[in-house]
Order: sequence, then structure tokens, then C-alpha cells
Amino acid sequence: MRYGRIGKAVQTRYVPNAVKVIAQTQCHWLWPGRRLGERNLSQKTGPQDKRTRMVRRSRFFQTRGLTMENQNPLSPHRLCDEQRAGLYQAVLTRRDVRGQFKPDPVPAAVLSRILTAAHHAPSVGFMQPWNFLLINSPQLKQRVHDAFVAANTEAAVMFDDERREVYQRLKLEGILEAPLNLCITCDRERAGPVVVGRTHMKTMDLYSSVCAVQNLWLAARAEGLGVGWVSIFHQRELQTILAIPRHIVPIAYLCIGYVSHFFDKPELESANWRPRLPLDELVYFEQWGQTSAEGAVPLQQQLRADQEAVQQGSFVSTRLD
Amino acid sequence: MRYGRIGKAVQTRYVPNAVKVIAQTQCHWLWPGRRLGERNLSQKTGPQDKRTRMVRRSRFFQTRGLTMENQNPLSPHRLCDEQRAGLYQAVLTRRDVRGQFKPDPVPAAVLSRILTAAHHAPSVGFMQPWNFLLINSPQLKQRVHDAFVAANTEAAVMFDDERREVYQRLKLEGILEAPLNLCITCDRERAGPVVVGRTHMKTMDLYSSVCAVQNLWLAARAEGLGVGWVSIFHQRELQTILAIPRHIVPIAYLCIGYVSHFFDKPELESANWRPRLPLDELVYFEQWGQTSAEGAVPLQQQLRADQEAVQQGSFVSTRLD
Repeated sequence: MRYGRIGKAVQTRYVPNAVKVIAQTQCHWLWPGRRLGERNLSQKTGPQDKRTRMVRRSRFFQTRGLTMENQNPLSPHRLCDEQRAGLYQAVLTRRDVRGQFKPDPVPAAVLSRILTAAHHAPSVGFMQPWNFLLINSPQLKQRVHDAFVAANTEAAVMFDDERREVYQRLKLEGILEAPLNLCITCDRERAGPVVVGRTHMKTMDLYSSVCAVQNLWLAARAEGLGVGWVSIFHQRELQTILAIPRHIVPIAYLCIGYVSHFFDKPELESANWRPRLPLDELVYFEQWGQTSAEGAVPLQQQLRADQEAVQQGSFVSTRLD
Repeated sequence: MRYGRIGKAVQTRYVPNAVKVIAQTQCHWLWPGRRLGERNLSQKTGPQDKRTRMVRRSRFFQTRGLTMENQNPLSPHRLCDEQRAGLYQAVLTRRDVRGQFKPDPVPAAVLSRILTAAHHAPSVGFMQPWNFLLINSPQLKQRVHDAFVAANTEAAVMFDDERREVYQRLKLEGILEAPLNLCITCDRERAGPVVVGRTHMKTMDLYSSVCAVQNLWLAARAEGLGVGWVSIFHQRELQTILAIPRHIVPIAYLCIGYVSHFFDKPELESANWRPRLPLDELVYFEQWGQTSAEGAVPLQQQLRADQEAVQQGSFVSTRLD
């Protein structure tokens, strides 16, 4: 019965989904004075309202050539040019920010939006195992910073002499400068002992919280906020400072705030700590390590061209067609 | 010396970054016939070219009221309305797709773009520990599917009677229907034994590969592609089928392809397996479990309003101002 609802949902939802195609494939600038959201349309066109739907369909096809979707009938659900550009722009200009934070507080509306993005990450068995612990207190930030300094001193010793000197000069956190700190956690017991999708891969719930971190990070970049992930702590110490129970895993400790600027490249890349790897060499076909296969060459050419465009800063303007 | 380059980079990169503000805060529809990418501008305005920069600045300020950025001087790096809408649209309409795949192959250019998005995920110590193993072979897909069926049979037994019946009717994968399967992995030895940021949190490299998965998932949604994450396998068996070495961890096995439609909600939510949790109850202040603090109430009101808007499908059209 319950599953029947899904089956039924497919039927009753298919039409609204078809309508949504229109909402998703047009940027609102095609309809001046109005930004398109799915609801704007679905409110006006219910599943039964065929005439209205046809009218909108015709308006949709009248825009042929204006939106890229029409160039590819395979992907009617593709977002419009500018929205797609926004996704890639956020992905490619997101940085791990350590040192360019401005003191201005993050407005509640903006903080709410990036937390909402995090809350809509995928989660194994729909566990939603995350919590979001916001830290504003200067005293708490200082204690967390002290914990970092202690751990970072231990870390430096682990590198060989030449690298240690470089390591010790890297700025790896903005705990005190960032107006907001956020610890994203994973409650491994949230959905009981047996969870759909976690029965064999026990780490799936941890991975779900990481997806929430990445959603928040990208939304923050879109909002113009810098985010830095600090991972040089003893977990137990972080749990003590923030009163996090033993069974709750701190996944990410994030420093968040507006920034003076974003770097063109990751700082470790600019510092020649490690180079950006050639993507085409990381892609295998059918079996591990296999770099040749039918259709491999065209893909590898695209991968090299895309990476070159990213390095030149022209990916979004030249590679989305 | 090496680190000196970063310091210097700040100086020499600051101006281009300032210029980029213009590129990032205007949708290209403000300049008809041209899509704005960072390069378009930086090619034309070098760091030294102050006059050109001022001209563009004035054009920027002339657009006050046309773009949201100008309403918030705190975030000059914020993406334009439509690009920001695109990020949230991808985040909120992304689904774990199991059953709506169309057989059409994924074009190389599109596959290259979503892999490029994955490759630009954050990674601890800039490890980039990921590989991307593409599976097209029907024989291999069948072996992977067999491995899933065996594991899923074991999984069903773990649920109590009432839930087991529902569980067995859930469709949890699209391995054979999806035109493309992709295994994203983590090479834990890629950057040697000592890695910046992994010295204390040993799982950081696994988390980096998960960030790559989420970047790819969101880029795929923007491209109109459905992605489903299958996690019900014995890891060793998956490694055997795909010839993945012992020290390489398979993080995600993904089914990818164009889809007939995307569901409005996650299937487990529609099936009443688990409800969407109230976000405002997942947010704590200063200490674990603390729900009251200065500024907590306005944020909690925003969180409730945002979640309500998401449920109504009106978030992108009503909550981005």
C-alpha cells in the first residue's frame, strides 16, 4: 500500500513534472518582471488544466533558440543557461578560505538559506543525520583555536624538514577572524540500528553529512560567503569544548564569513604544495586502470579541453554549449 | 619562498578579483548577446588597466536595482540572481533516481562537464584522491546488479516484519536501466602517508571523494541528468568485479542517465518511510543541544519559512531576496 503511493505518485506527478520543464528551462528574464520558480507555474497549472498547459507549452516552444535546452531534446529537465552557469560558477570558484574574512555578521536570511541547502543534501535511508552547531562566542572560538594550535604543532612534526618549514607558514584556519563558526555533525543512531542503504556500507551516514557540508559550501559561495574547513583537531577535544556527545561524530568544523576576495586557485596549488591532477588520467573505463575503450578518446579530449578552460577561467563562458 | 608566492598572489590577484566582482554579479542578460565568464572580463582588463576598470565599475553601479548584489554591499562576490537561483534549484530538485532512466547515452561533452565539477571538489591537502571508473558494459552491469541483489536479500532480513514488506517493494537501484554507471573511489595513498589536514582526522580523504560525488550529482541535475547512489554491496565484491585494488576505497556506485521526470520529493519521504525533519530543530547554538541564544529566534523563523517554501516549491521564487 505504502509503496503503491509511490507508483501512484509517478502517475499524478508526471504532468506537473512536464509543466515544470517550462519553469526549469526558461530563465526568468524571458518573462520580464518575474522570476520563475516551479511553484509559480504549478500554482497556475494543475494536472487537469490541459488548455493552460498547452498554452504554456506553445510559449515554451516559441522560445526555441533562446534557451539551450531546446538544442538538446534529451534533457528537457536541464536548467536554463544562466542557472546552469551559476551551478558551475559556484563549483569552480568555491575556495577553502582561511585568511580573507571580513568581520561583518552573516544575515539570518542568508544563513538560513545555506543551512536549508545543507538540509536538502542526500542522506542514506533519508536519515538526515546532521545537526548544525553555530558558534559565535569569542571564548568558545578561542578554546577551539587553542585546540587547533596544539594539534597543528603535533602535525608539523610529522612532515620532513623541507616540507615542515613550508607547512608551518601555511595559514590553515580562520577560526578567530571568521564571524561565524559552524560544526556539522552526524548522529549515527538517528534512524535506529538498521538503515536503508547502510546495511553493508557502514560509513554511508557519515558520507551523508559530508554531502550536507558540500551543499552548504556551494550555497555559501553563491551567496558570496567564504567557508574554510578546519580538520586539524583531536575529535574528543572538539567534542568536549562543544559538549558534543560521544555517539555524535563531528564531521566538519567550518569558518564562515564574507570575504575581501576569493583566490583564483586553491592556496595549496598556488603554493606548489601539490599540482592540480590531469582529470583525463583519473578516468578509467570498465575496469580499474583501463584508459582505452570505445568512446574513450572523445571523452578524454573533452576532459582536457574542459580542464584547460577552467585553468584559463573561461569554462563557464565557453564550455556550456 | 614558496609560501611567499601566496602572499604575493594576494597582492597581484586582488585587482583581478575586484574586476571579477563585476563578472560575477551581473547575469549576461544585462549585456545582450554575451554570456559573462570571468575570463571575458579579465582578458579585457588587466590588473594595471585602471581606466577600463573604472568604466566597468561605473557600468556596474548603473545597474543598481537590476541585480540583487547591489542590495547587499557585504557580498560583492555573490552570484547574480539567476545564477544563485540555479545553485538552489539544483540543490532542491536533485533526487536519488532509481527508476526513471531513459536509455539515451550521455553525450561526451555533458559527461566531461559533470566529471570536471567532481574534480573541482575540495580535497584535504589538495590530495584529489578520486578516480572515476565508468561502466558501460552490459555484462559488468549485470555482475554488479547480481552483487546488489545478493546483498539486498541479506539486507531485507535485517528489518522487522512490517518494515521488511515495505523494504522489499522499494526500488533501490537502476543499475541495468541507467545507460551509464560510475564508481567514484578514494586512493588513500595518493599523497603519501602524511597529508595536510588528515594528520588527526583520518577520514578526511574519504570525505573529499564524497564532496566530489556531491559536486557531480548537482552538476548532473543542472544538466537534466538523474543520478542514483547504490550502496547495498559487499565492498570486496564490488572491488573484485571492477578490479579495484585493496587500498582503493569505492566511495559511491552511481547510476546516471537522462530521466523521464524528477519526483517532487525524495521517494522514501513520499513512501512515508521517514519524514523530512524540521530544520530549525537541528540547529544548535554555542553548545550541543542548546536551542536558545541571542539572535536564535529570527534565524529559527527564517529556517521555518525557508523549509515551508521548499515544501511548497516556492523557495527559489520567493526566498532569495
